[in-house]
Amino acid sequence: MKLRYVLSVILVALLAMNPAYAADPLPSWNSGPTKDAIISFVKLVTTKGSPDYVPPAERIATFDNDGTLWSEKPVYFQLIFAIDRIKQLAPQHPQWKTQQPFKAVIEDDKESLSKSGMEGIAKLVMASHAGMTTDEFAHIVKGWIGSAKHPRFKRDYTDLVFQPMLELLDYLRANGFSTYIVSGGGVEFLRVWAEQVYGIPPQQVVGSTIKTKFELRDGKPVIVRLPQIDFIDDKDGKPIAINKFIGRRPIAAFGNSDGDLQMLQWTAAGKGPRFCLLVHHTDAKREWAYDRDSHVGRLDKALDEAKRRGWSVADMKKDWKVIYPFEK
Amino acid sequence: MKLRYVLSVILVALLAMNPAYAADPLPSWNSGPTKDAIISFVKLVTTKGSPDYVPPAERIATFDNDGTLWSEKPVYFQLIFAIDRIKQLAPQHPQWKTQQPFKAVIEDDKESLSKSGMEGIAKLVMASHAGMTTDEFAHIVKGWIGSAKHPRFKRDYTDLVFQPMLELLDYLRANGFSTYIVSGGGVEFLRVWAEQVYGIPPQQVVGSTIKTKFELRDGKPVIVRLPQIDFIDDKDGKPIAINKFIGRRPIAAFGNSDGDLQMLQWTAAGKGPRFCLLVHHTDAKREWAYDRDSHVGRLDKALDEAKRRGWSVADMKKDWKVIYPFEK
Repeated sequence: MKLRYVLSVILVALLAMNPAYAADPLPSWNSGPTKDAIISFVKLVTTKGSPDYVPPAERIATFDNDGTLWSEKPVYFQLIFAIDRIKQLAPQHPQWKTQQPFKAVIEDDKESLSKSGMEGIAKLVMASHAGMTTDEFAHIVKGWIGSAKHPRFKRDYTDLVFQPMLELLDYLRANGFSTYIVSGGGVEFLRVWAEQVYGIPPQQVVGSTIKTKFELRDGKPVIVRLPQIDFIDDKDGKPIAINKFIGRRPIAAFGNSDGDLQMLQWTAAGKGPRFCLLVHHTDAKREWAYDRDSHVGRLDKALDEAKRRGWSVADMKKDWKVIYPFEK
Repeated sequence: MKLRYVLSVILVALLAMNPAYAADPLPSWNSGPTKDAIISFVKLVTTKGSPDYVPPAERIATFDNDGTLWSEKPVYFQLIFAIDRIKQLAPQHPQWKTQQPFKAVIEDDKESLSKSGMEGIAKLVMASHAGMTTDEFAHIVKGWIGSAKHPRFKRDYTDLVFQPMLELLDYLRANGFSTYIVSGGGVEFLRVWAEQVYGIPPQQVVGSTIKTKFELRDGKPVIVRLPQIDFIDDKDGKPIAINKFIGRRPIAAFGNSDGDLQMLQWTAAGKGPRFCLLVHHTDAKREWAYDRDSHVGRLDKALDEAKRRGWSVADMKKDWKVIYPFEK
């Protein structure tokens, strides 16, 4: 049986070396300059003996999450998680009935919620994301991600990931890249499901963090989540976090908003070949269409810089055959 | 040529399957309970079908650095780097001639330096580790690590790594483990040389950090190191950093001092088989002998807890055939 296995491995390897058998690695991407640019870059850095060859250990690719790997409308999905959690906790906090922004959440009062601004959102996040151990929080996120449904599509939030980006992640990994998430979202929210959905293990997820403390409870060590911001992994925070967590400059970076601009700048400024891509939300019918004027996922300065510097822009309407895996 | 390569791979694989050809993976470890415990643990978690089998993605092993992977006497090597750097910078800072702790460093006044305590050390670290870009700092560390000599051994500091631990790192990696450093030392100091010396890439080095900022200098993005502590990766900080950076609980942890106790506790408290080991510095002749009363690398509470919980203790004198690679 060992020998049969070895022989079948050899057969597969021989077939793969023959271009006639090499399947399209990005079947959900339409032919065109964006797809060509991705494939050319991967060939460039993986061709041994070429002056642009990059050893596998240095093939770091970083991906924003919201709007780059999955949708982010009507609002960031993690905010919907926070709102659902507040509603669930409300019976234990009767004072919330008269306290903003909690009152607005309980009463589904979108106008007051919107008025509460970033400060209001921070209060909701702290009340829903802190005050428990890391194990307890992971359990809560797992429960939500496995049951909550998106208001428009009536599907799991993890169904709303982008099929072309899943193929891109696989394609890069098949070519020796390490794929990382570098998200403004909470790292412990993402890590619960990123491995199953994207094939990205916890240690390759970088995100925003709240402070934690270590303590022994009845002799058993736990890590407790505190209602205090530790680090916001957005804008300038992205290259700072890449430097701190990964310690190696990416050779490829993928984003969709002005919050990703500095990550792309940092990536592009390295020596040797670099690849930067912005996902442009242009498909109101299959997903959403928005850019310069959007509150969530605003793409304005980064779009100008992409044009100026010749970064790739994936036009969802033109470049993507399907948006979500369930369309296949 | 392709076929010859494939055949030779098969041959090597077949030979390795035969126990008669399986070489000792830890040749610098003397036979005995410590070595047996390591090998038993690795076999336990890598045997498919066994109830204790751990999939490769979850085989995380974390190592303290100072005193666990290399020596830490007469003081932490990074402090010697800071002192050397202060001396080098002194001509540009004439005021240091009258300011402590700089005066003590310039005059080699160990007593005054010692009196300046943690506050003094923090001043030295900030003056030597901040105020430059990350690229500039990496260049400075590279220069020092390639030229500075240890006062006792008159050798490069990177020669003073522990041969038995290098073998252990290789052995774990050959068995599908990911090996991480989780050190109280500065992460950007370690990352410069950890890959070459230990085979541990930057993204698997966790350590203490200072704050940084991202900025554009003449349109070119840089990350600048600021004279402000961000995080101290010691004691409680170790499990906190493991949770933040790796996001997955180790199944094996290796340390040598009370600063590693919480990392070992956090590791040991996970479900399923776990392995914890302390390196005990017992060899004054070949290295140093110290534990409960040492200022650098004190091993007191952790040694008691190791005995209580049955963690392994590597007695350097008894368990290690050689300490440093150059003894071979």
